[in-house]
Amino acid sequence: MSQYRTFAAADAVEYARQFGGVDNPNSLVDALEVGDGNLNLVFRIFDTAGVSRVIVKQALPWVRCVGESWPLTLDRARLEAEVLIEHGKFCPQHTVNILHYDPLLAVTVMEDLSDHAIWRADLVKGIDWPQAAGQLGDYLAQTLFHTSDFFQHPHQKKADVIRFTNPELCDITEELFFNEPYEVHARNAYPRALEPLAESLREDHELRVAVAGLKHRFYSNAEALLHGDVHSGSIFVAEGSLKVIDAEFGFYGPIGFDIGSALGNLLISYCAAPGLLPPREAADAREKRLNDVRQLWQSFAEGFLALAAEKSRDRALAVPGYASTFLAKIWRDSVGYSGTELIRRTVGMSQVADIKGIQDDAMRVECVRQAITLGRSLILLADHVADIDALIARIRQNG
Amino acid sequence: MSQYRTFAAADAVEYARQFGGVDNPNSLVDALEVGDGNLNLVFRIFDTAGVSRVIVKQALPWVRCVGESWPLTLDRARLEAEVLIEHGKFCPQHTVNILHYDPLLAVTVMEDLSDHAIWRADLVKGIDWPQAAGQLGDYLAQTLFHTSDFFQHPHQKKADVIRFTNPELCDITEELFFNEPYEVHARNAYPRALEPLAESLREDHELRVAVAGLKHRFYSNAEALLHGDVHSGSIFVAEGSLKVIDAEFGFYGPIGFDIGSALGNLLISYCAAPGLLPPREAADAREKRLNDVRQLWQSFAEGFLALAAEKSRDRALAVPGYASTFLAKIWRDSVGYSGTELIRRTVGMSQVADIKGIQDDAMRVECVRQAITLGRSLILLADHVADIDALIARIRQNG
Repeated sequence: MSQYRTFAAADAVEYARQFGGVDNPNSLVDALEVGDGNLNLVFRIFDTAGVSRVIVKQALPWVRCVGESWPLTLDRARLEAEVLIEHGKFCPQHTVNILHYDPLLAVTVMEDLSDHAIWRADLVKGIDWPQAAGQLGDYLAQTLFHTSDFFQHPHQKKADVIRFTNPELCDITEELFFNEPYEVHARNAYPRALEPLAESLREDHELRVAVAGLKHRFYSNAEALLHGDVHSGSIFVAEGSLKVIDAEFGFYGPIGFDIGSALGNLLISYCAAPGLLPPREAADAREKRLNDVRQLWQSFAEGFLALAAEKSRDRALAVPGYASTFLAKIWRDSVGYSGTELIRRTVGMSQVADIKGIQDDAMRVECVRQAITLGRSLILLADHVADIDALIARIRQNG
Repeated sequence: MSQYRTFAAADAVEYARQFGGVDNPNSLVDALEVGDGNLNLVFRIFDTAGVSRVIVKQALPWVRCVGESWPLTLDRARLEAEVLIEHGKFCPQHTVNILHYDPLLAVTVMEDLSDHAIWRADLVKGIDWPQAAGQLGDYLAQTLFHTSDFFQHPHQKKADVIRFTNPELCDITEELFFNEPYEVHARNAYPRALEPLAESLREDHELRVAVAGLKHRFYSNAEALLHGDVHSGSIFVAEGSLKVIDAEFGFYGPIGFDIGSALGNLLISYCAAPGLLPPREAADAREKRLNDVRQLWQSFAEGFLALAAEKSRDRALAVPGYASTFLAKIWRDSVGYSGTELIRRTVGMSQVADIKGIQDDAMRVECVRQAITLGRSLILLADHVADIDALIARIRQNG
């Protein structure tokens, strides 16, 4: 039994030799800490030829960006590893491979993906990965169907709801998605010029009621084992390949939350493009993002329905036609949660490179304004957007 | 630490002396086993004056009606006691008082209610308790609001979802409510004359899809700590008093399931009245049951909204107007689940005295037919019944 201690580079190398599954462990000689998140140390482990071979990730017992003032459970390392192992059972092609994890050290050893790019970084640069949205939809269909009541035995599902109970990380989502952007809050980070718009959100009664419903379903709709934080920064892409990482927010929740988070990130990229790229490239990028939105939903929806038709094990839920009835609920939730993602990334504290990378202040304000108004529309219209075509029409209408 | 052993009468007396909270324990001298359920021993403990003073209830490790062939977790004694203790915190006036429980012996000591009648027994006899439905609505409002996300801290709620995970008893509901009545199944117990009607349920595609949705929400909508088996046989009534017992099916589920179970039992009584009572009394009893249906819903709805307005602790869910939006979801679920209760009590194995007590065979078949067709209508119309007036109109329309 190992006790928790924070890893230095040498510890990470030693650990990778032991658990990295590398043929010649002694060839591993160096480690570089590359974490740009706030919650973890992330070491790339190099061999004698200077090639990165494996990743050693350790959870820190606090949120790094604010020092030691916000302590956070180390159990999230277990949760992250176990969610990824579970998702890997059902979608190995799009889930980062977990080689080893130690719950007491809060350390996970996983495959190195340094031949991949982080999707968000490429979106910011205007680099397109045309297969990525469809592959992400496939990941979502596989992982969410196979952990749902359609497929899991009721006893196994109930045991997994317990195993993946994640109070502290859910706390963060509950606050940052559903509370703070709709309140006066010190952590909000929208441009001062948009104070009137932020105030109008706080005073939009219908919006607040809709957000309450989304929060309530986040609390209470244990539909599938979610990744819990699907965004373009937790997705690696390469030629023909997509890998999802960083599942520490995983828990049993509403399927539409994962879909909506993914859609919302594509829409942030859509809103930010005019601030990041020259006009013609920006227009092209926006069309590509709308196409990604369509691909993602269609790939998810077709995948989910096909799996439900072939592999449903619950006798009642397997009745023909029920999966598509439930898909309509997922759709409404997805549209609503995509709106909350747009707003928490712009009004709230969880700012992203798509927005922060816009150099021109006035342009950045306009892009943020567009993201906020789109987010508000999607939350308000979630129950009334008939299908993916109607959604895309509504996005274009936003400007 | 005590090991499990099945109690004889003498054990029950000894136990009651120790844990019954009676001033003079040695005055307890006799025990009578009165359990008419299939799952438990229930001892009434008498004093030297022959007065029943306290109840000792022990869970059996199998379902009694089928011998030892259907083993069942003894953990249900813990679940029952803890659900009742939890509900008693929020609605002591309508929850049986738990004096002591021992998880290893699966024994619970509780207050004696022999000055009360079982509501179902009086309904069968045509005896009216005009305050009961309103009091039951109050019990449901208090217990379901206070264990919901409106009131519970998110960490406490998540811990309680774990504490009240109830796989084996939920199994029974999942099978008996949502599967068997819609299949050819050996446990179904409808009259042979209704085979065509039972077959029409099995072949009603729209009905099966609606039932799948109700089952799915039973699996996945962890809205509040339900009693899980609210029916007129688990409710004691007396002048001005109502006490709910038998919470071993309790778990975190959809609020409408408890409401719908309660409504469904009133509607079974409504359907059975012409078979149990002379025509004029039957007509009178039916009006009273419809009034009970109205009282129960109104008392619940008004209570829930008042509590939400006064005591909601979640900042987002507390926004004015959200509770009534959520109440509309509870209403739809309640109507649907009331339909499944009608069908599982008539087509399925869980037959009740209201129906079994009808002496005339042809009349019994007609009452069962009415209950089944009403149940089917309510399941199919659940999303389209605007309010309690529309529900009552729909019930009258059924004949």
